[in-house]
Amino acid sequence: MSQIPKSHPRYESLRIRNLVVRGVKNGITSLDGLIAHGRGEAFDYLIGEKTNDFAVNSINASAALMLLARNPVISVNGNAAALVPEELAELSAILNCSLEVNIFHSSKEREIKIKNYLIKNGAKNVLLPDKSRTIKFLDSNRKYVNPNGILKADVVFVPLEDGDRTEALIKNKKQVVAIDLNPLSRTSQKATITIVDNIIRTLPLLIKTINLYKNKKFNENKLLGMINNYNNKKILSRAIDFIGYFASR
Amino acid sequence: MSQIPKSHPRYESLRIRNLVVRGVKNGITSLDGLIAHGRGEAFDYLIGEKTNDFAVNSINASAALMLLARNPVISVNGNAAALVPEELAELSAILNCSLEVNIFHSSKEREIKIKNYLIKNGAKNVLLPDKSRTIKFLDSNRKYVNPNGILKADVVFVPLEDGDRTEALIKNKKQVVAIDLNPLSRTSQKATITIVDNIIRTLPLLIKTINLYKNKKFNENKLLGMINNYNNKKILSRAIDFIGYFASR
Repeated sequence: MSQIPKSHPRYESLRIRNLVVRGVKNGITSLDGLIAHGRGEAFDYLIGEKTNDFAVNSINASAALMLLARNPVISVNGNAAALVPEELAELSAILNCSLEVNIFHSSKEREIKIKNYLIKNGAKNVLLPDKSRTIKFLDSNRKYVNPNGILKADVVFVPLEDGDRTEALIKNKKQVVAIDLNPLSRTSQKATITIVDNIIRTLPLLIKTINLYKNKKFNENKLLGMINNYNNKKILSRAIDFIGYFASR
Repeated sequence: MSQIPKSHPRYESLRIRNLVVRGVKNGITSLDGLIAHGRGEAFDYLIGEKTNDFAVNSINASAALMLLARNPVISVNGNAAALVPEELAELSAILNCSLEVNIFHSSKEREIKIKNYLIKNGAKNVLLPDKSRTIKFLDSNRKYVNPNGILKADVVFVPLEDGDRTEALIKNKKQVVAIDLNPLSRTSQKATITIVDNIIRTLPLLIKTINLYKNKKFNENKLLGMINNYNNKKILSRAIDFIGYFASR
């Protein structure tokens, strides 16, 4: 990648893109991950490249759900690791939960590189999948899970997910918090809570919100109320309407 | 990339994606090209992954413009070569014009690989840029052109283009036919004719249309009439409306 001048009209988008390209060069992100990033860029463009009110609502509900979880876990793939390694480490620390590497294209080498990259960025607790343990209703490499992480989790945070696995996690009776820029995707439609936003903007805001709820010592009832009042279908249709409006402006 | 079963709901999209991933592995396509492909995938999804009537109109006008051109040329980058090498060779043959390699990230090695790949797929006349000749109003590597190709061309066909170059070509008094899945992009907005469609579907249809006009011996007046009746702004707003409608369906 060439150096991008800060004056470039697409500077922020190109800066983020560079993180993923560097991820490929470091062996953390797959080539397919680059294509997925490009899809995300297009949808980010269509939501105005900002965190809209529908995303803020989802982030607030996600903070509540993750604080109430008995065994939350943060699933990490190659794109998430390349984009927000420090924030993933921080989220894992404040929730006192594990990060678990889980990738689509089977590669022990890449799993270990992702783990090491997260540790280098401050993560303390990173699990790898165990080839003897699986979740049900899934055929791909992503079915392999760690018994202390995804297998026993009640809430799984899956930034940048594929639709098959989101469906499978739900069928395995887990609650799923997804970040997905495409509100029409299967992941978005199937997740318990879908944050339609760019992971780069979401993670700092999610961390801030969780810290706020912790410091203000929101009690269980208050957090439960927030979750009960949240309606993912409604949030998704607001995001879809926004795109329709934005495109035909 | 794993083998994709034909039964997969996203088979065609994954098959096309594999062509670009293979392009990277063969040294033809850049990593940034993969991201661009991903953006294209998202917009293709939003236009229903089909050649809509607005694209058919643009293809018909493009066929007329290219047949009337005195010196047409087909600009080829890494993604176009990976996706439709045989069709580019065929288009060059029926228009009796050159293909010219023109890429964003300067690399003599990749230029030669693209040229050889086009020749392997049947191309007879492939030009490379000449580092001593440039078009005006452009700073990037794409300013370098061949004196027998883009430099002297009146009509430049630029599948999968960047906005800066489209603007520069227009300022250099050339007519530009672009294929771009994003009707909101600068390329789409600046080109003389914008085909909002997937290059995989456009090229065979464009070739068929040019052959039809040639066989039916459309005279110059008839072709000119088609061009004069064509309104790119109107076509783009139909494409944009379609996306708005499709997203909020």
